[in-house]
Amino acid sequence: MGINNVKGTHDVIGSEANLYSAIESLLKQIAELHAYNEVRPPVLEYSELFVRGVGESSDVVRKEMYTFLDKGQRSLTLRPEFTAGIMRLIVQNKLLATNDWPLKLYYCGPVFRYERPQLGRYRQFNQFGVEAVGHNSPINDVEVITMAYIMLTSLGLENVTIKINTLGDEESRNAYRDALKAFFKDKVANMCEDCRSRYELNPLRILDCKVPEDQEIVKDAPHMSQYLSDSSKARFETVCNALKELNIPFEVDDSLVRGLDYYSETVFEFHYVSQKGNDYGAIGAGGHYSHLVKEVGGPDVPGIGFSFGIERLASVISDDGLIPTDIENKCDIYVMSLGEQNQIYALAYANDARLAGYNVEMCFDNTKLGNMFKRAEKKSAKVALIIGDNEIEKGIVILKNMATKEQKEVLASEFIDEIDKLLANCDDNCCCGNNCKCEN
Amino acid sequence: MGINNVKGTHDVIGSEANLYSAIESLLKQIAELHAYNEVRPPVLEYSELFVRGVGESSDVVRKEMYTFLDKGQRSLTLRPEFTAGIMRLIVQNKLLATNDWPLKLYYCGPVFRYERPQLGRYRQFNQFGVEAVGHNSPINDVEVITMAYIMLTSLGLENVTIKINTLGDEESRNAYRDALKAFFKDKVANMCEDCRSRYELNPLRILDCKVPEDQEIVKDAPHMSQYLSDSSKARFETVCNALKELNIPFEVDDSLVRGLDYYSETVFEFHYVSQKGNDYGAIGAGGHYSHLVKEVGGPDVPGIGFSFGIERLASVISDDGLIPTDIENKCDIYVMSLGEQNQIYALAYANDARLAGYNVEMCFDNTKLGNMFKRAEKKSAKVALIIGDNEIEKGIVILKNMATKEQKEVLASEFIDEIDKLLANCDDNCCCGNNCKCEN
Repeated sequence: MGINNVKGTHDVIGSEANLYSAIESLLKQIAELHAYNEVRPPVLEYSELFVRGVGESSDVVRKEMYTFLDKGQRSLTLRPEFTAGIMRLIVQNKLLATNDWPLKLYYCGPVFRYERPQLGRYRQFNQFGVEAVGHNSPINDVEVITMAYIMLTSLGLENVTIKINTLGDEESRNAYRDALKAFFKDKVANMCEDCRSRYELNPLRILDCKVPEDQEIVKDAPHMSQYLSDSSKARFETVCNALKELNIPFEVDDSLVRGLDYYSETVFEFHYVSQKGNDYGAIGAGGHYSHLVKEVGGPDVPGIGFSFGIERLASVISDDGLIPTDIENKCDIYVMSLGEQNQIYALAYANDARLAGYNVEMCFDNTKLGNMFKRAEKKSAKVALIIGDNEIEKGIVILKNMATKEQKEVLASEFIDEIDKLLANCDDNCCCGNNCKCEN
Repeated sequence: MGINNVKGTHDVIGSEANLYSAIESLLKQIAELHAYNEVRPPVLEYSELFVRGVGESSDVVRKEMYTFLDKGQRSLTLRPEFTAGIMRLIVQNKLLATNDWPLKLYYCGPVFRYERPQLGRYRQFNQFGVEAVGHNSPINDVEVITMAYIMLTSLGLENVTIKINTLGDEESRNAYRDALKAFFKDKVANMCEDCRSRYELNPLRILDCKVPEDQEIVKDAPHMSQYLSDSSKARFETVCNALKELNIPFEVDDSLVRGLDYYSETVFEFHYVSQKGNDYGAIGAGGHYSHLVKEVGGPDVPGIGFSFGIERLASVISDDGLIPTDIENKCDIYVMSLGEQNQIYALAYANDARLAGYNVEMCFDNTKLGNMFKRAEKKSAKVALIIGDNEIEKGIVILKNMATKEQKEVLASEFIDEIDKLLANCDDNCCCGNNCKCEN
């Protein structure tokens, strides 16, 4: 009887695993060029961190957390997002104990949400993201948004739409909240259960409601922009002007409020429609937060961050046909032993070639040469290395160029040199001096 | 009020995070040279997978699993190890539906064990490992052990001791189990509670007991080697001879039984004593298994695998002073803006330099030039880039070589070329033709 994976989780295998690694590695590289440093908070945190950090009124905390009691009866939660844990990590490890802010951190790993499983939505998925903490400069916001945009375009995604909005400072949000309360006061009784609870906890979240009847009502609600304080207005203008100056395309969308309670000032989303016309919605998002560090016990400094879902990015990249051609594990050399007793010598050659940097696979079956060649072809091996009693006695190996089918006997002591020549990478501006048959 | 991390978990930050990444990236690279492919099973699995796959009698399953009911009342467990999940992944995704075995997979990620927290032992830690599934060749065992050894030596670890043993086939283990039962029959009543339960579930596990009084009794127990079948004996001899042939140092230790129920035939551990004399015990271990794939619902084929704990490897590497010098995020360029209004232009230069591959940090504080230079020095920046009103008007930037303190004005349009010259990497065999002041 088989055991299956847990509903809503997924196995990442084959070329998909290679694609995830390629995406993550590019994102990390770009973050590091922006002087961000990696951090790895644990997957498990005390539940109260997310209640405080993500916010009680958010759907994530209210409905989607994997929460359980450990053997010591403490309530633990599998992180539903990284930001709250990163803030905890910053405070606990005193990473702000310098005057050189923002502190710039990136992260990558699994997060867990108990959502209804649906196409492309998983209960365990991977996020990459950054947090820049401790500085309120609007230019820092711009650096963060720009970096995210560079990441997406570096992945080859061409039609990214940046939607951006401001939620203002506390003064602005209080004024707006009052206006929303007044607007929805005599309407909320006819709205969905979620909206009724949002009305009490955080009326801004009503604007996110997906129920069609409620959306009709929301359409006429007052806009954030009417309630912005002068300083929030000026801050947002600086952000928008700087993005223009840097030629980063964006559109202001004042219906954008984001699903988490902690955001303030600048918020943004990266939307994508694939070349085939599939609308992926937001493939990444983030925003500025004012009090999150204080909320988890640190100084009252702001920050800004964003995250991408790796699964989502991988889907978009696949849909657009942007999968890098070099992510398959290409077999350089397939090693074949004639006679089981010679496998040990075959392995010695395989290991030497690996130490020289080649991807080497060896056949452990004592089967016919024809079968081994079929396997080598299936693996797109470039060279076959063959040894049997005869070759061992003569101190040679046979190398076969799988493309040209030419084969030759080479001295055992020179086999790496011969493979270097056969596999010399002569694609561009060849100057290798080897008999590599390229045109350079 | 601060919220701390969950007891037994740890934050990975700063140079430690860089070290983890460097270790993982080297291990992945070596696995890929051996034609292993990455897979990522989920963190969460149904609990019965581990009960069946890891074994009911193991300490891991009996005492150390993070198990809880999800909202649908299914028992889920945070994986305490990878192997059972990889077997499930292989069967469910039909990865053995080819005649080209072994299937070679590697993995890397967090695992969870509710152990008593102690120095260097965490409740969430990271494992890297491999599984080669579907082939029984002893040379496959040798390839796996050799690869692990290459990984450890590639990390710079010089005094690795490989301990190896055979647990034999089913016939051998049944004979040995009977001999152990007979030996312990009139002794077990005086042994610890764990041993009494091991006596019933799996008497081999008694040999692992850490209680000093029990160890006295265990000393005189019969040895596995006396009960090996002829074929298991021959198989183990092939493995040992091949390791000798490949000049891999090892010692046979017939007290080695490993803590998990699924092992058979070859088992091995990598032990390490640091140059300062600290004994780290096993820093990695693995073994052959006969029926694990069948156990989770697949065909009855054997496999072999091993895993390393990343935390343990990082400790050993640090202890031996082997931390690579290039893992700190080195700042190439520190960008300084004179006047807050010029930060946006500073950011444009920063981004251009990043796109050219430089690690660039920019100062968001509107502070004195002297302060900014102090920060640049603290970050070991190689070049400072300075712009103010004057520079913008003249279409130039100022570049300062932080080592020589020389500074010069360069045309804005040529600043990348100038930085290329300043930062030309002339460490070995320089032929850059730039005014790089190296001796080549």
